[in-house]
Amino acid sequence: MKVGGRSYRSLAVAEDGWSVEVVDQTRLPGEFVLTRLRTVEEAAAAIRTMQVRGAPLIGVTAAYGICLALRADPSDAALATADRVLGETRPTAINLRRALSRMASVLREVPPGERAEAAYRLAAKLADEDVGINERIGLHGERILRDLAGRKPSGQLNILTHCNAGWLATVDWGTALAPVYRAHHAGIPTHVWVSETRPRNQGRLTAWELAQEGVPYTLVVDSAAGLLLSLGKVDVVLVGADRVTRGGDVANKIGTYLKALAAREAGVPFYVAAPSPSIDWTLDRGEAVPIEERSADEVIATPGTPVHNPGFDITPARLITGLVTERGLGSASEAGLRGLFPEINPLPAPG
Amino acid sequence: MKVGGRSYRSLAVAEDGWSVEVVDQTRLPGEFVLTRLRTVEEAAAAIRTMQVRGAPLIGVTAAYGICLALRADPSDAALATADRVLGETRPTAINLRRALSRMASVLREVPPGERAEAAYRLAAKLADEDVGINERIGLHGERILRDLAGRKPSGQLNILTHCNAGWLATVDWGTALAPVYRAHHAGIPTHVWVSETRPRNQGRLTAWELAQEGVPYTLVVDSAAGLLLSLGKVDVVLVGADRVTRGGDVANKIGTYLKALAAREAGVPFYVAAPSPSIDWTLDRGEAVPIEERSADEVIATPGTPVHNPGFDITPARLITGLVTERGLGSASEAGLRGLFPEINPLPAPG
Repeated sequence: MKVGGRSYRSLAVAEDGWSVEVVDQTRLPGEFVLTRLRTVEEAAAAIRTMQVRGAPLIGVTAAYGICLALRADPSDAALATADRVLGETRPTAINLRRALSRMASVLREVPPGERAEAAYRLAAKLADEDVGINERIGLHGERILRDLAGRKPSGQLNILTHCNAGWLATVDWGTALAPVYRAHHAGIPTHVWVSETRPRNQGRLTAWELAQEGVPYTLVVDSAAGLLLSLGKVDVVLVGADRVTRGGDVANKIGTYLKALAAREAGVPFYVAAPSPSIDWTLDRGEAVPIEERSADEVIATPGTPVHNPGFDITPARLITGLVTERGLGSASEAGLRGLFPEINPLPAPG
Repeated sequence: MKVGGRSYRSLAVAEDGWSVEVVDQTRLPGEFVLTRLRTVEEAAAAIRTMQVRGAPLIGVTAAYGICLALRADPSDAALATADRVLGETRPTAINLRRALSRMASVLREVPPGERAEAAYRLAAKLADEDVGINERIGLHGERILRDLAGRKPSGQLNILTHCNAGWLATVDWGTALAPVYRAHHAGIPTHVWVSETRPRNQGRLTAWELAQEGVPYTLVVDSAAGLLLSLGKVDVVLVGADRVTRGGDVANKIGTYLKALAAREAGVPFYVAAPSPSIDWTLDRGEAVPIEERSADEVIATPGTPVHNPGFDITPARLITGLVTERGLGSASEAGLRGLFPEINPLPAPG
């Protein structure tokens, strides 16, 4: 997507051909700064400190973290260590574990002397797959937005989103914002309610992205979603996902669940942009998803204040109008997901 | 209530016998500082900038604002001007208008030469009434908390509140926190989930108050309420009110409605501490309550960012388990409120 008229991806291999250049998201929206990752430790730190964030992007960043590790030491032991170090950075988004296990399962079969090169090839493939998936989510989601806009006399569509599921959360396009960008550029009058997203304020990233692309938006505090929905000021809620269970429950940024409750109460459709790498086929119900507890420092600066800072919550499938995947729209249910991904082998139901 | 072991009210006439000493709530929790109001303009500014805040407290502060005006100029014109200036400070809490109309209706009948003295007497009465009302809310609310705690095997009661409805929001005791203080001091093991309350972070005032009184608490972001409720970590939600309609709808700090939705979904009781000066008998439904739009600066420091910053939302009566008034617990309905306040004359239903 564009920054000051120039196209960027949120992550790319630098001109030196090996180091990894990422947008430092902790400095946005104040400054747009690219930073270099040169070691697996730097990649892990970038994920942990949220210089890079967003379920799809941390998956691809972890894949490149493996590349950086193998470039320094292509041994089995180094591969195993890198896999562990990167895997421990953040627990909720399944994309991270999926990317790491894909890298490890392929690279273990490659002779050490060829591993680094093979790793870069596979990581590039993961990055390009992410972009392709998001483009298709954009296409399918745009149809939903176009349909909703067509039913409004004014034609203007008010979309509520939460956190940042834009291009910064992915390699490019974004998940929840991909349909918004497509709709906007197709001339559908869109306006986005951007939820601040405490404690890390990722809503400011969304606001910044939308401003760069010229999409009208308004920032609100997280608590405002209920009032906006009850007053008819929202036509559709569209959010991303950190993990979708095969039953259709969605783990996403803390606060998503409250928006889903308020949407149902107002009779407003609630869609989740769910790329297949975010689907966890091994879990049936959202209660089983590990919820990351983050530092108290994110919430308050007064030392000693007792703080509980869970990063995600679970929106049950029954509150979700539909999942927008790269294969199209499906119901938030095992039947819906299996209908879209019939190649997934049946898994035994947990105990 | 106590600060460093010494008892304070959030507002009191100073030792000089006429200026008004208030806790500057914009400096808490960092510093506990008393500030003096010497003119009606200073009183209005203190309300507008939220040095004093909370529906009951801004009512009493406005009453003292009238005193300060009349001390300088006891004419009819000065009374009318003070009434207007103070009345325009904040629109949602009905307590402000009620206190002002009570002051004006009495003082208009008093000869100018005696007005200032009569004003101070009446304002002191309003302040003492507030304290008495809150003490009784504490008594009635404590019974509810004791009953809920008795049903828990652990005995520990987890209470979720929002914003600050503690002693800082009133002259003393608080509304929603009065029952919590009583329960805690009566030996019922209580723990309070304190909601940050963006954008002004009044949760930090609640955390500070609770810490001063030794009540265990944990601060969370506003968005965390859904997760906490869905995981069974909350036994009761207890909040204050800026205005209660005679039909039992409640205007309160933005975000209250989302907590009510999540409480209903989790089967957790949702109580509103509703002192009678917060009841608006002229309005049936919450949709008619004016919702204050506050400055964009409260949400974000980046100039030019489009912001919508409504200060309150409406929780419909159907989501409210009960209203805790100074006369006891009533259902959130016209029948419930009239049962508690039978002396209120029937009013014609609005057009």
